[in-house]
Amino acid sequence: MARNAGVQLLGAWSSPFSNRVELALKLKSVEYEFVEEEFYVKKSERLVKANPVYQKIPVLIHNEKPVCESLVIVEYIDEAWAGNGPSILPSDPYERAIARFWAGYLDNKWFPAMKELETASGDEAKATVVGKVFEGFALLEEVFVKFSKGKAFFGGDNVGYLDIALGCFLGWVKVAEIIGGGKLLDESRFPGLAAWAERFLSHDVAKDIVRDAPTILEFFGKVQAARAAAAKTAAE
Amino acid sequence: MARNAGVQLLGAWSSPFSNRVELALKLKSVEYEFVEEEFYVKKSERLVKANPVYQKIPVLIHNEKPVCESLVIVEYIDEAWAGNGPSILPSDPYERAIARFWAGYLDNKWFPAMKELETASGDEAKATVVGKVFEGFALLEEVFVKFSKGKAFFGGDNVGYLDIALGCFLGWVKVAEIIGGGKLLDESRFPGLAAWAERFLSHDVAKDIVRDAPTILEFFGKVQAARAAAAKTAAE
Repeated sequence: MARNAGVQLLGAWSSPFSNRVELALKLKSVEYEFVEEEFYVKKSERLVKANPVYQKIPVLIHNEKPVCESLVIVEYIDEAWAGNGPSILPSDPYERAIARFWAGYLDNKWFPAMKELETASGDEAKATVVGKVFEGFALLEEVFVKFSKGKAFFGGDNVGYLDIALGCFLGWVKVAEIIGGGKLLDESRFPGLAAWAERFLSHDVAKDIVRDAPTILEFFGKVQAARAAAAKTAAE
Repeated sequence: MARNAGVQLLGAWSSPFSNRVELALKLKSVEYEFVEEEFYVKKSERLVKANPVYQKIPVLIHNEKPVCESLVIVEYIDEAWAGNGPSILPSDPYERAIARFWAGYLDNKWFPAMKELETASGDEAKATVVGKVFEGFALLEEVFVKFSKGKAFFGGDNVGYLDIALGCFLGWVKVAEIIGGGKLLDESRFPGLAAWAERFLSHDVAKDIVRDAPTILEFFGKVQAARAAAAKTAAE
């Protein structure tokens, strides 16, 4: 790993958006200090100061200057360490635009639909949300086929921007399958995407970063207990 | 203007997001065919085909390939016509990241607050919305001072990414001042930003693209009448 004493990441291992930044840092072989923010307990003073607008993780601090918003950070890493290995974004302007478009789609449309699974109650509401998630996967299956051109990743032979942008959510997709009660990334419906997901999760860059569903679920059990205890203390 | 027979923009002169793309095309001296979409009447088949995910303007079509989402399009224009004059984004990776962060803020936070002015009813609701808009301008005033370093624009001596990202809304800010009933971009509160706005609006690149408030208001009177007539026909 390249020595970069001046790189810190304010993040959380359980956050896909924080994972996204770690994936980019690993891809570019950038050494960094990971600062776990216990965002579910209290936002740290450092986080609020580094990201006053949103007060959210992840924040990358490079030479004491903060960069916020995960997709902005990934592009920053790609540009600031341009010399470290293959670029994360495609080199062709049109492919770059298409990658940015779909990354925006993931954050603005697809992930919000996925999140609805947590709160959807009743079979009808759940079926509506699952329908939206399937619609998203159907689009992403098409994008994968077009982008990968028969290769392993959205980025071709290498993990690239869309691999990171979508791959960071794969632990959560499995959590959603458990709590939503049913296969979402179904290999019979989305064969390209399902095979890509397995490849991505066993890739060196993802292995220690994107956690498996039981680990995430166990952690969120603890978060809920901590929140309940805090609420009880506040009420007393 | 450079000859680019293969460039069309599906847009609308009244849309700030469409204006944003025209501003970028003009900055880069790219010749284009403007296709006015009457989005308030009916989405054209061409638009739905070019942007099936959002079915929204603007869409840039270059050599028959569509690019959607205004900020994605602006970066595409900057990269696809990299040789045409100064670059729209800053060259420094950190400044690029900061520009992208604030452009995202404009679209995700600031403009939605501005839009609430259209529907806020009652003095209290209006005051809350105006408070949010002021908060946004206060942040943007700081950003302007930091970014411009005493020069004319966010981009320094030249109009750049944030000038386009924010400048496209200036006609709408004036509309909001009229319908919201009060000065928003107040030079005593936001001196840097207010002076920038005047400079931007009288810049060659903006003059024929960002319309003045009376023109926009007149147009929206017509749109409302057309919508009312369509609703009446549908009800008959």
